[in-house]
Amino acid sequence: MAGPVLRDETGAQRTLGYILDLSGETARATMTVDDRHTNRTGRLHGGIATVLLDSAMGGTASLSLDPEGMHPVVTLSLTTNYVGGGALGDELIATARITGSGRKVKYVDGVLETTDGRVIATATGVFKSIARD
Amino acid sequence: MAGPVLRDETGAQRTLGYILDLSGETARATMTVDDRHTNRTGRLHGGIATVLLDSAMGGTASLSLDPEGMHPVVTLSLTTNYVGGGALGDELIATARITGSGRKVKYVDGVLETTDGRVIATATGVFKSIARD
Amino acid sequence: MAGPVLRDETGAQRTLGYILDLSGETARATMTVDDRHTNRTGRLHGGIATVLLDSAMGGTASLSLDPEGMHPVVTLSLTTNYVGGGALGDELIATARITGSGRKVKYVDGVLETTDGRVIATATGVFKSIARD
Amino acid sequence: MAGPVLRDETGAQRTLGYILDLSGETARATMTVDDRHTNRTGRLHGGIATVLLDSAMGGTASLSLDPEGMHPVVTLSLTTNYVGGGALGDELIATARITGSGRKVKYVDGVLETTDGRVIATATGVFKSIARD
Repeated sequence: MAGPVLRDETGAQRTLGYILDLSGETARATMTVDDRHTNRTGRLHGGIATVLLDSAMGGTASLSLDPEGMHPVVTLSLTTNYVGGGALGDELIATARITGSGRKVKYVDGVLETTDGRVIATATGVFKSIARD
Repeated sequence: MAGPVLRDETGAQRTLGYILDLSGETARATMTVDDRHTNRTGRLHGGIATVLLDSAMGGTASLSLDPEGMHPVVTLSLTTNYVGGGALGDELIATARITGSGRKVKYVDGVLETTDGRVIATATGVFKSIARD
Repeated sequence: MAGPVLRDETGAQRTLGYILDLSGETARATMTVDDRHTNRTGRLHGGIATVLLDSAMGGTASLSLDPEGMHPVVTLSLTTNYVGGGALGDELIATARITGSGRKVKYVDGVLETTDGRVIATATGVFKSIARD
Repeated sequence: MAGPVLRDETGAQRTLGYILDLSGETARATMTVDDRHTNRTGRLHGGIATVLLDSAMGGTASLSLDPEGMHPVVTLSLTTNYVGGGALGDELIATARITGSGRKVKYVDGVLETTDGRVIATATGVFKSIARD
């Protein structure tokens, strides 16, 4: 009883090439930085770092509501601190954990790191459970 | 004496198809939501909303340092509040303004709206001027 | 039909000496910086700047739900950017405005300024309406 | 070689009655909630939660620059997520840790908990080292 590993599932995933893994107790998003992801300095665009964090954090909020991670949630607010820069070829992994939980509101922290443990960004966010269609 | 209108200049721009306009006193980023930009609910991915906001806000910080908007800046921290959702076909425009300014640190607020004035997200961030290479 | 001007109403107000004015369409909090409010550098403590912002922003969320500003709200998340410092004797005023609104969730921006218009801090927050007892 | 435990050192400390402990590798701020600290619902004012977090986080940034925790820092930006509420009599402790570090910029996360481990609020902030006078 676990969620799927999603590839090419959404528009953003197909465009940016990240994988969203919902098979654990918390979600993770992984991506290798390539020339689709660069900003004006040729490095990882901060907004794309936030795509990975938001995906892992929202997935983790969803998994806290549903063991398959399919319960829909929306992001109310997300703060990203850009601790370090990401470069071409970096293998990135965004992980997340629940820090607090109301009936509908979930507080989630996230970290984006390289696979060798260098922190790229940290994030904290508030997510809200919404009704399934 | 004004900055350029940048299209297809960076990896993120080419991938996501947004335009960064540095020709005014502040920067703006524009994009029409298409199937490259969707999340698991088929709507605009919040992280991609942040790409537009970060681009317009960083460009505005850069324009405050250099009339052509070429001075490099890095984002230290960015908070996005997801006020409304974005849907396929929405024509989005991110604008920004400086709220405070130190010698190197720039405080910038941003708004992401549809061209008919519906607010999608607001953001506030801290940017730092870095040395030109 | 307007809300009250609250003085010495709550513990925090009595302790810190700020006034919360709910008589307009949005709330404002005012306070003169004195030696109750200083940090280790002898200037306004950033957390006390946030007390004023949170009070004005929460009051504004409450006024959007109830013309007398008595509807209870809780702060889910608040980000403060410390644009400038506050000094002893500064007359401060925190104002706020709604940037977006769901049925229960209110997005509010705030500014803390001196009465002569120097910005001390800006803030953005998410508030939630809760049931009246 | 460690920093002091500060009581009644600053205006904010004397007013609110919290202790800032700089004797460890990271700083902590402690306070018992009393009737000086309440908001309109009779519970801990969110801004006062942020006073404790900002104090512990800024102290931790300072300790990362100076083993006695006396190096001055300013808060650039601080985000607080209000995970739970605080009540009269709660014994609170704010702790912090460095998540990233540039030459002058320090990224710090904080947690405010009761002494029996219930999370009241989490925070993430960006601090900047400033010159000693």
